[in-house]
Amino acid sequence: MMNNKQIILKHYVEGYPKESDMEFKNSIIKLNVPEGSNVVVLKNLYLSCDPYMRNRMSKLEGSYVQSFTPSYPITGYGVSKVLKSGDSNFQEGDLVWGMTGWEEYSIVTNTQSMFKIDHDKDVPLSYYIGILGMPGMTAYAGFYEVCSPKKGETVFVTAASGAVGQLVGQFAKMLGCYVVGSAGSKHKVDMLKTKFGFDEAFNYKEEQDLDAALKRYFPDGIDIYFENVGGKMLDAVLVNMKLHGRIAVCGMISQYNLDKTEGVHNLFCLIAKRIRMEGFLVFDYYHLYPKYLEMIMPQIKAGNIVYVEDIAEGFESAPSALVGLFSGLNVGKQVVKISCE
Amino acid sequence: MMNNKQIILKHYVEGYPKESDMEFKNSIIKLNVPEGSNVVVLKNLYLSCDPYMRNRMSKLEGSYVQSFTPSYPITGYGVSKVLKSGDSNFQEGDLVWGMTGWEEYSIVTNTQSMFKIDHDKDVPLSYYIGILGMPGMTAYAGFYEVCSPKKGETVFVTAASGAVGQLVGQFAKMLGCYVVGSAGSKHKVDMLKTKFGFDEAFNYKEEQDLDAALKRYFPDGIDIYFENVGGKMLDAVLVNMKLHGRIAVCGMISQYNLDKTEGVHNLFCLIAKRIRMEGFLVFDYYHLYPKYLEMIMPQIKAGNIVYVEDIAEGFESAPSALVGLFSGLNVGKQVVKISCE
Repeated sequence: MMNNKQIILKHYVEGYPKESDMEFKNSIIKLNVPEGSNVVVLKNLYLSCDPYMRNRMSKLEGSYVQSFTPSYPITGYGVSKVLKSGDSNFQEGDLVWGMTGWEEYSIVTNTQSMFKIDHDKDVPLSYYIGILGMPGMTAYAGFYEVCSPKKGETVFVTAASGAVGQLVGQFAKMLGCYVVGSAGSKHKVDMLKTKFGFDEAFNYKEEQDLDAALKRYFPDGIDIYFENVGGKMLDAVLVNMKLHGRIAVCGMISQYNLDKTEGVHNLFCLIAKRIRMEGFLVFDYYHLYPKYLEMIMPQIKAGNIVYVEDIAEGFESAPSALVGLFSGLNVGKQVVKISCE
Repeated sequence: MMNNKQIILKHYVEGYPKESDMEFKNSIIKLNVPEGSNVVVLKNLYLSCDPYMRNRMSKLEGSYVQSFTPSYPITGYGVSKVLKSGDSNFQEGDLVWGMTGWEEYSIVTNTQSMFKIDHDKDVPLSYYIGILGMPGMTAYAGFYEVCSPKKGETVFVTAASGAVGQLVGQFAKMLGCYVVGSAGSKHKVDMLKTKFGFDEAFNYKEEQDLDAALKRYFPDGIDIYFENVGGKMLDAVLVNMKLHGRIAVCGMISQYNLDKTEGVHNLFCLIAKRIRMEGFLVFDYYHLYPKYLEMIMPQIKAGNIVYVEDIAEGFESAPSALVGLFSGLNVGKQVVKISCE
């Protein structure tokens, strides 16, 4: 029997989530595998804070994700260590990433979507909830599979310093595209240019007129828009797209906390410019994960691709880290470190 | 020298177009080809009224179509007879379809987009501005090339009795899809079911709740939406799409006369349902025209595909016919017959 601190969702959330929508709970867990069971017992090391989790804090029906269950621990991506295993695919001591609970220890029954980590000491373990995990695969699938990118094209990325955006920008640069990103602070904008190699970047909060801002950076228009924010920005982008442009719709974080989403008015541009706008979810692309790892690992080790994480220390910091995502407090991928190996 | 009645646009239009935005003009034309010129002199027989013409009545900049020029004749698709030709591709007496002027006689300098008609007496000549012309190619390219349709899928078509919609529905039925159309009158709705073979149809003007209407006809969701109207209907469709659905964006006629277009709020569905939404223009697909003719001609002759036209008689009726499109007065493809062969 062990004490197991947990973070539970108190109730469904409306508007911006607050730390007080969550609470800590002390529970007790038995760290063993009952005979004949194939569960895996995990010690959680890193928890991931991702924008899609906001949707799960609402009461959803027929959505692509399930709502969290009030009074139960929040769930999300994490990096964990296997303590006990009733599943022959996992052994005691294995490091894994996948869905886990916001708690110190988790008992996982569905091991289908759990990936074993072939840990390379040169690469931080936390990367498996970032560049080497779901956000990395999202950027990879979204950019290469959905955007149909070509060398020399112009690419615009919103939420560009975030877990996904920073990678999309770097992938686009690797391919020889002209890349512009937007973010919400001077620090992030500087980082886009100096650290991630974006050609240009701007702070959307300082632009009175998003259309004018886009025209400044894309006088000849945008071939590819990697959409992470939605709303007003999408409207401004639509009128600045080039003929036969592509919009990969990855997220709409600006809309998640609104009672009523903003209306998008310029969809006629889809016709006039023959634009393909396509939503995607990373779940449909995990079969490409081995191929992605093969591509990305050498790039990370060679320093060709960098990844910025914002690591909150300690289990107690998880609620504020998650809440902070929605006001853009994080700089880079938001991670919560809850334990060393 | 001949008298040549013309219909000119008096001024750029705001809001719904009115007959008084156009006026008749008597001018004089010389029906000959100057030596060394490659112009073609046409006698116009049929004029086409199409929704996209509304856009050309506004002052446009950088659009996919050019504005009409105030004080000059309106231009549009027509069926015409060649009176004189300086272009070796066309002979006196040929029947052609393509861009012409809203006037009795036109002198065409750009013959590149003019198609020669291999006239079959079994097929009405007016079909060349309908099922055998731009609207036919629009339905063909939009459905087969953009929608990626598969047998057994569920298809929703708006403006379903119009020049394009009636064909999309019939193409979808031919492929073995379940097809529902919406239109704006009882007469049109009846026609969709009895004449064009749609599985179901409804009058959108009689539905208080478009979402509920769609759920009634698509309890399991929509695979393919052929978008002709935009606005509120698009919003309702988005929440009723199936996973991996496709939206071919052909037109948004409900929005063309509004000062400010309606906002579309449910675009997050693109992500949750991995929807591809793609705008297209028929101009990009005219290379498929011979292939289309080969497919469609036998179907017309066999009576497998029907086409309903709304023929306004006489040159004088053209302005009211065009204006009527935007309040849905037309039943089927709106044609203006201005002369017999």
